[in-house]
Amino acid sequence: MSTEMADTDDSATDDGFVARQSATLFDSAQPLVLESGETLGPIQVAYQTYGKLSPRKDNTVFICHALTGDAHVAGRHHEDDRKPGWWDGFIGPGKAIDTNRYFVVCANILGGCQGTTGPSSENPVTGKPYGPDFPFITIRDIVNVHNALLDHLDIEKVLAVVGGSLGGMQVLEWAVSRPDRVGAAVVLASGPKLNAQGIAFNAVGRRAIYSDPLFHDGWYYGEEEKPRFGLALARMIAHITYLSEQSIELKFGRKLQNGEEFGFDLKSETEFQIESYLHYQGNQFVDRFDANSYLALTRAMDYFDLSEAYGSIADALSRANSRFLVVSYSTDWLYPTAQSKEIVRSLIEVRKHVTFRELLSPFGHDAFLIEQELPKLEALVSPFLARTYTDGRKSN
Amino acid sequence: MSTEMADTDDSATDDGFVARQSATLFDSAQPLVLESGETLGPIQVAYQTYGKLSPRKDNTVFICHALTGDAHVAGRHHEDDRKPGWWDGFIGPGKAIDTNRYFVVCANILGGCQGTTGPSSENPVTGKPYGPDFPFITIRDIVNVHNALLDHLDIEKVLAVVGGSLGGMQVLEWAVSRPDRVGAAVVLASGPKLNAQGIAFNAVGRRAIYSDPLFHDGWYYGEEEKPRFGLALARMIAHITYLSEQSIELKFGRKLQNGEEFGFDLKSETEFQIESYLHYQGNQFVDRFDANSYLALTRAMDYFDLSEAYGSIADALSRANSRFLVVSYSTDWLYPTAQSKEIVRSLIEVRKHVTFRELLSPFGHDAFLIEQELPKLEALVSPFLARTYTDGRKSN
Repeated sequence: MSTEMADTDDSATDDGFVARQSATLFDSAQPLVLESGETLGPIQVAYQTYGKLSPRKDNTVFICHALTGDAHVAGRHHEDDRKPGWWDGFIGPGKAIDTNRYFVVCANILGGCQGTTGPSSENPVTGKPYGPDFPFITIRDIVNVHNALLDHLDIEKVLAVVGGSLGGMQVLEWAVSRPDRVGAAVVLASGPKLNAQGIAFNAVGRRAIYSDPLFHDGWYYGEEEKPRFGLALARMIAHITYLSEQSIELKFGRKLQNGEEFGFDLKSETEFQIESYLHYQGNQFVDRFDANSYLALTRAMDYFDLSEAYGSIADALSRANSRFLVVSYSTDWLYPTAQSKEIVRSLIEVRKHVTFRELLSPFGHDAFLIEQELPKLEALVSPFLARTYTDGRKSN
Repeated sequence: MSTEMADTDDSATDDGFVARQSATLFDSAQPLVLESGETLGPIQVAYQTYGKLSPRKDNTVFICHALTGDAHVAGRHHEDDRKPGWWDGFIGPGKAIDTNRYFVVCANILGGCQGTTGPSSENPVTGKPYGPDFPFITIRDIVNVHNALLDHLDIEKVLAVVGGSLGGMQVLEWAVSRPDRVGAAVVLASGPKLNAQGIAFNAVGRRAIYSDPLFHDGWYYGEEEKPRFGLALARMIAHITYLSEQSIELKFGRKLQNGEEFGFDLKSETEFQIESYLHYQGNQFVDRFDANSYLALTRAMDYFDLSEAYGSIADALSRANSRFLVVSYSTDWLYPTAQSKEIVRSLIEVRKHVTFRELLSPFGHDAFLIEQELPKLEALVSPFLARTYTDGRKSN
């Protein structure tokens, strides 16, 4: 695997702000061979780092983001940034993943639209965005690219790989396909495969995009208008699955958006607060996400199946060489606890070191991202990382 | 309430086939006053009857259909009909609701598109379909129209009102707003209100329709193409909520539609069987349903709230004068058992006669419609109706 042409845009800043970095990996002569058999190269990877790599290079924590996340996992780029990174409550100096101690790396995933090569990136052959010509990618391809990034950063082995949801699937893939590179695997709100109901929701989201007349079979980049409606709708559907019935009921219930009386107006789409919230979520999303990326990444999610790839979940996990922390959330119905337990049972079967906890939370699948739920998660992740770190130093 | 201009198209047939019937109720001089304050008339009501009304007129079972159902609840209209009515396994001679004994009536609901006045009906003022000018309707309006149908049929009181899902909401409304007209109320897979998650799914379905460019703000009747994509998408979303995770997993799991190998083709929308199934369901639906009706009826469903209308569920149900049978299904997550229990607790609180059972089923919300689940339901409904019937005859 070649890792040439590193072109870091910007080095880590010392002023408390975080810098966007980028590497160009692979090239057209030595492209990445994808799971589909197609090839891709060069591949640009956007990433960010936090803390300092130890002289022994044994303190790297690699964060795998979820479906629509990005490399900006914590901190701010500028003092006037409205919001910090998506897991800022969990990662930073003195936080659950303590950047005074660990060197944290997070990279945008292959197929995404936040700096890593994806459908909206320029196809070097045509000089135009790949669009629907972007090759089909899988979780394994995503992990392969991030492995190449580690090579590029000259890091042989990471202390831990940590991720939730689609990020958790990447963690499992890391542990199984790169066993000697992973000290510990932290799998949050995830599973060894997406169940059929999850595929169904993804399918409906994709349908919304495909049937948007502004989608133009994926060739919308040069157009004035993007397939906003389809993508927003896909996001609205998915967003419902990220919440629990309980959390929607607690937060919104049947409360109306304006006043206390029904409007009896069929033209109003946002009469109940939950409707207004979903519309807002959908509209926000289309400003930061690309429809072709959404198609590609939900398909990568559908395809991931540890047992299909290796015969059984246990056969897959028998290849791992790391310790595991598996965490599920009691009201997560997208990746229910039963899925985490399947992983745990298989790990025990093949005699791997595993810690498992189902956290009680009303917040459904998204709980691992929600500020007020982070202390419970910290109480599990922080000592788990510390123990892995200490044990690693002892054995070296 | 006026019930003039009865124009039965077709009398009941004696050849084993069922006939479509129709009544014109209300008129422009004496219109129905809707809950919104608007008025509507005349109103055409499509209905079908099964069995014979007893000389004492005490054997009527009124069936309330669900969101997208119709009056054709059982039997065939012609010998070459591909399928019988939607609850044919449950209603007929010798069946759970035995038409040798009971006189069954089922009518299409107000706002629907199967013969009862709805947005696709002709607006007498303009001579064109109502479209988005159709007034906002509620469950109470639907029940008021069906009450007028009873007047028209000269039936003072029904032995029972029976319905599942949105039909169950109608049953509750019947019991509460027309207490002296209902002997027994059978509420299946339903609740005193839709929870916020249900409103959320309805909202996304409506969004799909509104954002279909062929929707033309509801004025699509004269157009060559209807908003098929939007309506099909709405149906696909809703259909997922009618199934359980367990039933999708059992029936489809991660099975592929063609062969055993992944296609790595992002253009394929039906790679997994569950996707193909949902697309099929969506496409079938648009041939028989009207988008404006879908909007109107999902809003009626959102608005229904026994406690909002009467102060509390118990206050609402204290008005009832019937006995109740409440049935929920263990894997129904659209109207979970907890909602049925809320009804039951309130009924007990106000000292009404109630029988409750949660039926174990893998089939989710749709279980009450599924052939193989009907024997369990029959074991509850059949004796409940028989007892009500016998007790009623004793007391008269």
